Amino acid sequence: MYRKELKVMDCTVRDGGLQNKWQFSDAFVKAVYDACVEAGVDYMEIGYKSSENAYSKKENGPWKFCEEKDLRRIVGENNTGTKLAAMADIGRIDFDDIPLKSESVLDMIRVACYDYQVDKGIALAEHCMDKGYEVTINLMAVSTVTEMALDQALSDLSKSKVPTIYLVDSFGSMYSEQIAFLMNKYKKALPGKTIGFHGHNNMQLAFANTIETIIHGANMVDGTILGLGRGAGNCGTELLLTFLKNPKYRVKPILQVIQDQIIPIQKELSWGYYIPYLITGYLNLHPSSAIKWMDSEEKDDFMSFFEQSIDSRKELE
Amino acid sequence: MYRKELKVMDCTVRDGGLQNKWQFSDAFVKAVYDACVEAGVDYMEIGYKSSENAYSKKENGPWKFCEEKDLRRIVGENNTGTKLAAMADIGRIDFDDIPLKSESVLDMIRVACYDYQVDKGIALAEHCMDKGYEVTINLMAVSTVTEMALDQALSDLSKSKVPTIYLVDSFGSMYSEQIAFLMNKYKKALPGKTIGFHGHNNMQLAFANTIETIIHGANMVDGTILGLGRGAGNCGTELLLTFLKNPKYRVKPILQVIQDQIIPIQKELSWGYYIPYLITGYLNLHPSSAIKWMDSEEKDDFMSFFEQSIDSRKELE
Repeated sequence: MYRKELKVMDCTVRDGGLQNKWQFSDAFVKAVYDACVEAGVDYMEIGYKSSENAYSKKENGPWKFCEEKDLRRIVGENNTGTKLAAMADIGRIDFDDIPLKSESVLDMIRVACYDYQVDKGIALAEHCMDKGYEVTINLMAVSTVTEMALDQALSDLSKSKVPTIYLVDSFGSMYSEQIAFLMNKYKKALPGKTIGFHGHNNMQLAFANTIETIIHGANMVDGTILGLGRGAGNCGTELLLTFLKNPKYRVKPILQVIQDQIIPIQKELSWGYYIPYLITGYLNLHPSSAIKWMDSEEKDDFMSFFEQSIDSRKELE
Repeated sequence: MYRKELKVMDCTVRDGGLQNKWQFSDAFVKAVYDACVEAGVDYMEIGYKSSENAYSKKENGPWKFCEEKDLRRIVGENNTGTKLAAMADIGRIDFDDIPLKSESVLDMIRVACYDYQVDKGIALAEHCMDKGYEVTINLMAVSTVTEMALDQALSDLSKSKVPTIYLVDSFGSMYSEQIAFLMNKYKKALPGKTIGFHGHNNMQLAFANTIETIIHGANMVDGTILGLGRGAGNCGTELLLTFLKNPKYRVKPILQVIQDQIIPIQKELSWGYYIPYLITGYLNLHPSSAIKWMDSEEKDDFMSFFEQSIDSRKELE
């Protein structure tokens, strides 16, 4: 698949950090950064921009906050072909926490919001644009949003200045047919805008669904190295780069960092395809209950988790 | 996806046996069988029919041969809704090794062959039909077969009495667009026949590609429990059953056997998504070199395997 406009975003540190509260060593983050640069990855999302009022610095590592001094310790002035992004969650950051682009080594702010927060999301994203950043809005958890609410959110987004809107499969619960349906809806509702995609691998479909969005015109797609991300993780950046035939991408540096940095932390962080994550994906539930289960001593008794999840699903009905 | 005609084939013992020379305990095979029966799985492929002239009984467990006494020790008369299948490889079995259906608890023989063996495959399959079995022909490794050779093989198959022909992604190297292309070719070339699909998970696409074949009309699809199979393994039977909405299927017995039997052997057999398998899938190479690498002490140095594989690919060109 060769399409010049298509951009790859590596979210290893940001999404992977959900597994260890962003307590990565500098050597790890630097190795991921170097690999992204060498591989020709277009954007690296290095963490969140968050307010210290929202999160404790004792509990959370530097990539929950992305302060300039921490960023520059890793990337210097980032005179590379890879742009740097950080995610901002609505309600967890104040406008004043965002420096001017001219004072930051970040290039892009990705605003994550739910459908009922889309007005706040647009306000924050446009504020970031005014400060000089590229922006996206990542509309989360749409697998639980009614058609009417989604259409309203997309209508609001279509009127905004925000150039890129993400389809997000937060629960890893979507099959290819839903992806195709939603891509067609987003394209129709958001003329002139770029559509992005961010998936989760609960049903081993993150890569396949990413391909499906590319076929339907998505031009910004997310991966994480060896899928390192929350719960079941994400589409592997290494898979994306083997699929995309644009000669600017090289998979070898990504394989090297998997060998040197990702495999060594795999056992400790244990993301990936585990049955509790399949269960929440299949039942279209937030993965938080599965993540909690995987951290408990009952981890391997996933039949009890299955019963509990079926019950919680019934409560929803 | 509800389609009455669609059948699920669980190949856990047959394909998984490629990882341990079919040295499963009786308790393991019985648990997989019981789970398939309780889950409403249509067919269970319990092993290979092979000649003792082709393989040593010292090296290979009973499921490489599927003798009646071994089968009946597990399944009795198999008075259940799940039919039993065994695979036969061309050149590894004589006609005389196949008993009459009336003397066997097996219901189906699946004949595996390469495109250049298709005449022998048809002869063996029709021989099995004459003996009273259901049959399929599984045409392997078509990702390396030229269009002319594939068209010839399909033409031969179309003239045979064999009712079901499998598209097989032996190397785990196919993307959804190739799957769609080949399904359309198979359907056109094989009017009136059932098309099946068997995939491998080298690029995390086994489940997604199976869905793609179902969308394109495949009515017999293979899974293995937790993907247990050669190298990167297969489409998870648990994934298939959560996807298929036919009320005859129940995923819970499959999850239970994963917890009780599959997880405990996972570390020892180490199938699944590992970078050496991604490399052979991506390069469209037979997984045998990756399997050998994964068994060696250099297992974790997959960058060396990457270089070696790139070189071997160049030799092909």
